[in-house]
Amino acid sequence: MSLAKKIISGDQRALARALTFIEDGDAASERILAELHAHGGKAHLVGVTGAPGVGKSTLVNALAQSVRARGDTVGVLAVDPTSPFSSGAVLGDRIRMRDLAGDKGIYIRSMATRGALGGLSHATAAAADVLDAAGFDCVLIETVGVGQAGVEIAANVHTTIVLMAPGSGDDVQAIKAGILEIADILVVNKADLSGAEQTRAYLRSTLTMGQTARAVAGHPHSEQADTPSPGWEVPLLMTVASVGEGVDELLQSLVAHHDYLASSGELDNRQRERMRAIVELRLRNRLYTRLVQQVSQQRFDALLQAIVARETDPYSAVASLMEDID
Amino acid sequence: MSLAKKIISGDQRALARALTFIEDGDAASERILAELHAHGGKAHLVGVTGAPGVGKSTLVNALAQSVRARGDTVGVLAVDPTSPFSSGAVLGDRIRMRDLAGDKGIYIRSMATRGALGGLSHATAAAADVLDAAGFDCVLIETVGVGQAGVEIAANVHTTIVLMAPGSGDDVQAIKAGILEIADILVVNKADLSGAEQTRAYLRSTLTMGQTARAVAGHPHSEQADTPSPGWEVPLLMTVASVGEGVDELLQSLVAHHDYLASSGELDNRQRERMRAIVELRLRNRLYTRLVQQVSQQRFDALLQAIVARETDPYSAVASLMEDID
Repeated sequence: MSLAKKIISGDQRALARALTFIEDGDAASERILAELHAHGGKAHLVGVTGAPGVGKSTLVNALAQSVRARGDTVGVLAVDPTSPFSSGAVLGDRIRMRDLAGDKGIYIRSMATRGALGGLSHATAAAADVLDAAGFDCVLIETVGVGQAGVEIAANVHTTIVLMAPGSGDDVQAIKAGILEIADILVVNKADLSGAEQTRAYLRSTLTMGQTARAVAGHPHSEQADTPSPGWEVPLLMTVASVGEGVDELLQSLVAHHDYLASSGELDNRQRERMRAIVELRLRNRLYTRLVQQVSQQRFDALLQAIVARETDPYSAVASLMEDID
Repeated sequence: MSLAKKIISGDQRALARALTFIEDGDAASERILAELHAHGGKAHLVGVTGAPGVGKSTLVNALAQSVRARGDTVGVLAVDPTSPFSSGAVLGDRIRMRDLAGDKGIYIRSMATRGALGGLSHATAAAADVLDAAGFDCVLIETVGVGQAGVEIAANVHTTIVLMAPGSGDDVQAIKAGILEIADILVVNKADLSGAEQTRAYLRSTLTMGQTARAVAGHPHSEQADTPSPGWEVPLLMTVASVGEGVDELLQSLVAHHDYLASSGELDNRQRERMRAIVELRLRNRLYTRLVQQVSQQRFDALLQAIVARETDPYSAVASLMEDID
């Protein structure tokens, strides 16, 4: 039986192997993804993002349990840039697993960056597709969302939850980093800390400003998957994830957002844009690989040397390589 | 006179225009970069990265003044993901400019993401090349360095300074995010806060572990520009950037690292890898553009529709498109 067939039949060891192939940028992953594709497209893909320390892991853990309590199955991807020092990925898995072990309806995996073609965001998208095809109703993707990384991951999901904590200055920083613009649902976690109400009020006024700005800019049928949903009013929720407070309400908002996406046609848009990105990345890789095969290493190195010596420039060198293959 | 010639002659308005072309992904930027290339390769490119709130802007400001006091010229790029709400980039410029206005030996610019081909890290690399060709001795690039973004920027510079603040938990988070691995120089800023000594001791022990790990792994002549310098012992410095404390020592470390890179041959490696990345990105873009011209929009859309309908998969679709152009 192929690895893909095993995954579809619910074999979690096969699932783990496929995810490792994806992480490592192994050529086998493409065959597996191709075979799995026909079985995907059903899961609700959810990104959970925020600055370090806002409590993402705790919230994702609580949310996963809430999804399970509702009777749905859930896959969790904790996206963690590789660190050879800490082995944070492995450690993280073990800590989480203690709470959730023994339930086949939940699958938790940390993802690292090593080797994945197109970087972490594409590896994460592929991993989400695998969990989707494996039959999980909901896939939660947890990422450190400062700056570009958060925005890229948001383009790969249906619903983006942005998480903040009160009083840490994260709110202002997040606005600077453009993270509010990607939120479909905004959550103030650690709502039992002092300053929570202040943070909520601040975010509320910023959200109102932003929604006005978007309404004025007016893109009712945006093709871009990484802009917030038009016609959707971003809910602002308060949670204390460590004791589960507010987590059921968050799940309700998640379900409401999925319903909104499905009924407005926006879900189809987001699915299409995800696929367009996958096709484009793959095409770029194939085209570049083909060029590398057509041009000798010697020719390439000589050009590079001339660029470093400032005898030619990178743009003339590229033009010359393009002529080679034409 | 061409824009490039104006830039080389020290025209800062021409410089500003070229940087805007790069930010916007304007086609003109390529011509300008090509013309400037012969005049580049002299500047010391320095990345300053760290989590939000550690005091990067303050440190970069102080460091820039320290470079000037030494008699060198300095360009500063503050890399700031675009936010339509806050206009943080513009605001940031103005605040900084108050301290440094009227000195032609310093140039400060915020960079946003909009439209740049290959994303922010490539736009930043191009902007650094422009400042290099404009004759600045040192280019300081300030980035929010959590996760992938920080690592990518590090691949574009000669020296990476990683900044932390005491007691914020940033130290542990940074290790998780792999940010220590990219440091050529490690700085604990806000060293007057309680917990600074503890953070320093913690980082010291982690650094020692890391350097041992790297020595065991053993890659003495790594071609990778984003790994720390082999044979270079990462200094761990303490600063209070707000009052300039420790900033001269930091500058000394910067100069020492540049000397080390030049004498070990590692500077040449890093220059070559920067150029390789620029050539590769440009080739990928050219190849993809050519394919898009060869394949009809109709054909592409039909394939995308079939993928979304799960009638075919992205990988078979790509194979089929590659056959079209062969």
